[in-house]
Amino acid sequence: MDSRTAHKAKRIDIAQGIREVLLNKEHAEELGLRANDRVKVVSEKGESLVALVNVTETLVKMGEVGVYVDLWNSLNLKDGDAVHVVPTSRPASIDLIRKKIHGHIWHQEEIKAIVDDICLGNLSDIELAAYVTAVQINDLTMDEITWLTTAMVSTGDTIDWETSPILDVHSIGGVPGNKYAPITVPIVAANGLTIPKTSSRAISSAAGTADIMEVVCNVTHDAQSIKRIAREVGGTLVWGGGVTLAPVDDSIIRVEYPLSLDPRGQVLASVMSKKKAIGAEYCVIDIPIGEGTKVVTPEEARNLARDFIMLGEKIGVRTRCAITYGGQPVGKAIGPILEIREALRVLEGAESPSSLIEKSTSLAGILLELGGRALPGRGADLAKETLRSGKALEKFREIVGAQGGDANVSSGDLVPGEHSCEFPSLRDGYIEAPRNRALIKIARAAGSPKDKGAGLILMYKKGERVEEGEPLLTIYAENKRKLEDARTLAGKLQPVQVEGMILGEVVE
Amino acid sequence: MDSRTAHKAKRIDIAQGIREVLLNKEHAEELGLRANDRVKVVSEKGESLVALVNVTETLVKMGEVGVYVDLWNSLNLKDGDAVHVVPTSRPASIDLIRKKIHGHIWHQEEIKAIVDDICLGNLSDIELAAYVTAVQINDLTMDEITWLTTAMVSTGDTIDWETSPILDVHSIGGVPGNKYAPITVPIVAANGLTIPKTSSRAISSAAGTADIMEVVCNVTHDAQSIKRIAREVGGTLVWGGGVTLAPVDDSIIRVEYPLSLDPRGQVLASVMSKKKAIGAEYCVIDIPIGEGTKVVTPEEARNLARDFIMLGEKIGVRTRCAITYGGQPVGKAIGPILEIREALRVLEGAESPSSLIEKSTSLAGILLELGGRALPGRGADLAKETLRSGKALEKFREIVGAQGGDANVSSGDLVPGEHSCEFPSLRDGYIEAPRNRALIKIARAAGSPKDKGAGLILMYKKGERVEEGEPLLTIYAENKRKLEDARTLAGKLQPVQVEGMILGEVVE
Repeated sequence: MDSRTAHKAKRIDIAQGIREVLLNKEHAEELGLRANDRVKVVSEKGESLVALVNVTETLVKMGEVGVYVDLWNSLNLKDGDAVHVVPTSRPASIDLIRKKIHGHIWHQEEIKAIVDDICLGNLSDIELAAYVTAVQINDLTMDEITWLTTAMVSTGDTIDWETSPILDVHSIGGVPGNKYAPITVPIVAANGLTIPKTSSRAISSAAGTADIMEVVCNVTHDAQSIKRIAREVGGTLVWGGGVTLAPVDDSIIRVEYPLSLDPRGQVLASVMSKKKAIGAEYCVIDIPIGEGTKVVTPEEARNLARDFIMLGEKIGVRTRCAITYGGQPVGKAIGPILEIREALRVLEGAESPSSLIEKSTSLAGILLELGGRALPGRGADLAKETLRSGKALEKFREIVGAQGGDANVSSGDLVPGEHSCEFPSLRDGYIEAPRNRALIKIARAAGSPKDKGAGLILMYKKGERVEEGEPLLTIYAENKRKLEDARTLAGKLQPVQVEGMILGEVVE
Repeated sequence: MDSRTAHKAKRIDIAQGIREVLLNKEHAEELGLRANDRVKVVSEKGESLVALVNVTETLVKMGEVGVYVDLWNSLNLKDGDAVHVVPTSRPASIDLIRKKIHGHIWHQEEIKAIVDDICLGNLSDIELAAYVTAVQINDLTMDEITWLTTAMVSTGDTIDWETSPILDVHSIGGVPGNKYAPITVPIVAANGLTIPKTSSRAISSAAGTADIMEVVCNVTHDAQSIKRIAREVGGTLVWGGGVTLAPVDDSIIRVEYPLSLDPRGQVLASVMSKKKAIGAEYCVIDIPIGEGTKVVTPEEARNLARDFIMLGEKIGVRTRCAITYGGQPVGKAIGPILEIREALRVLEGAESPSSLIEKSTSLAGILLELGGRALPGRGADLAKETLRSGKALEKFREIVGAQGGDANVSSGDLVPGEHSCEFPSLRDGYIEAPRNRALIKIARAAGSPKDKGAGLILMYKKGERVEEGEPLLTIYAENKRKLEDARTLAGKLQPVQVEGMILGEVVE
């Protein structure tokens, strides 16, 4: 069969975020192709795109070409459409990735070429994994990181503002219960500043800010809608996935995730490209230290903070960093409903886990100083006053209303999963730091973040005194089986340890 | 839906060499899974294997689980069989790969764990690419290479011999027309030595030794059959793919290929594990230098040779290396029939491209010295004498007969593709080195190695004098279209340049 012969397109409904075709083995051999080679796929209308080759013996017959959904949609194909398949060479950015493997420093246009190829879905998982591994081992210079950041910004939406200043805040994550944003953002907006905050959903954590906010309002808004809401009420608390800010980041994260890799240069570019794209002029980065966070030592945290500040300068986003304690959860609640309820109670002045109040108002304080609303060193006081006065609660409700939720929402409306169990202490003593990773696993086993009512409440934080029989933990779930799963896991992982006890006694 | 609920297995006929399942998106979300996570798949008979998750919205419905062929076959499934899918953690070797990324040196048992996981198909393309990239950048110590080699040997077949010595020879490749083995192996075997040679098929080259030998006999033989033939006639010229020698190598090559990476440690372990597995006690490695080969400078070649010798010592295979000129093709023929015909002509004494005779007899000479049939420095003379006497031809025919071919085969029986064209010189002058990569591309365009009769003959080698109008190149093909494709490509690539001409003249 001739490479110039038309083949019938057959839709293969597997979405990998890469453009791929599935060829009959014999067809591939005739074209001299093997898995991971490239072909140009040409549609009847003459549109053509490069795709990666997969091979099958039966799923696609001779005379057919399997087209995976990503490519199918890009070429606007219909079942039975004719397509031509022509062998083609590999994208140039593979040689550029090889350069980094061999220790070379990239030029600006080389980074742009790689980012563009990733954005177009031209690189396979193998090539992306080589990219991430090479960047992890051979690192990037600050110039490379700057070029990477601006290249990433240029692949997606950006928002231009007529007002100024535009503020933003971001936590590099890893700490469960980190629900500062629903408190920090309203405090800043209540002081007349503009803060269009976007957040992620949970990937491996128990609940992202977007999962939490979704309990009380719609979080999916596009760039136009974000701009409108922020101009109307001063701030947003939306899902970043609703707007395509530096979308190339998602493709990179997809391969970082299974490798548990987070190359420094990539973290910096990933965070700051989204801030630049949203139009931020001032930004505060929260860097938590502790078990399960991205940064282990204060020294590493300070280095990372300096990198963020330098990168911010280079791309025109004035940045300050807060290094925070992440050795145990922020506040006591983990899971969407439980977390937004805890944040609302803080806004309502009804409950006060001090770690949550301290963190939210500290971050808000830096933002208020950057935005010119407070003198240096006085921001946190203003933030606390804004919280105490009820203005932050009022602003939060305005934001919820503007995002399509009930503007009269109160913590009393929020009811966690109907199934719950307590986990009592087996001894008297003082609480050691609750274990972040174990708590996340237990909350997820209970159904969080998909089951909004699932999660857990820590009854004590580190250093507090507990008596035998008192509950250490209450787990909530929306169904009984998941509650049982979570209870079993908690028994196994023992996420909260009580110290000060004799662990064993030697008799005689 | 419950993770303990049985799902109907649906066969997904895509073979990637990895165990994979395809889950409905909703099902995956319920289980808290995303692409590249792991699940344990349990069959009705209670067999279970770990697999990688892919996600679809329609190809697999709720209540079904798509099972890719590799896993399908491993679990002996039938359509509609019930399977259970249970989320499970990642294999430990991912953390070991992360260790290499962070510059750590592996222990023996860590390398064994990684190799076993690759062999079991437990690692995804992303993880394998990270492995290869990390090994390329952070390199392996000689101890690590030794452990890698022995771990690779242990994953496949091995042959134990009652006789001694067992010899082997291997070229690390990159030079087109490298048809030494059908001459070297018979010379060695004709001197009463045992040389069970296995070869590869072409991947990106024009023709592998296995493709060439397949013209005259069956090349697919298992370990038992190799042993029987080698004991009967002293040597084999078979395809390595017929026997599973260090099969884990194939999985690694699959990701090295798209990245064009060939980490030193991996090359050494890959070659020597196959030699150890076949039971070789003595081995000669041919390291060609020149355009398109794996090694560019003589210095690199010497270093690599030292590594081969040291690794050979550590695993008990006494090794010598020959650094050879690979700057142009060996002999003049490229393509299966053309190459075996050229080799047969040398064996018959009828034709003599000196480069092919020199290379074949030099390598045979070293083997004869290692095997105790010639004194140091006298092996090549004995090899030439064996060739001249006709004993090598006789032995070649015995091997062909033992491998199921016509034991009376002669070069006159071998007819290349019926379509051919010549490529005349446009000027008088001396030939520059023919370009390896361009020649390979042209031979492949003509249909090699799949079309056995396709390929090309170089009419002149480097330094020879050509007159205007004389043919530089004859291209053969089995069909007209491919001949045209090859001719067009040859016109574009100009694989043979004629020097000594004025390229331009300045008038006035």
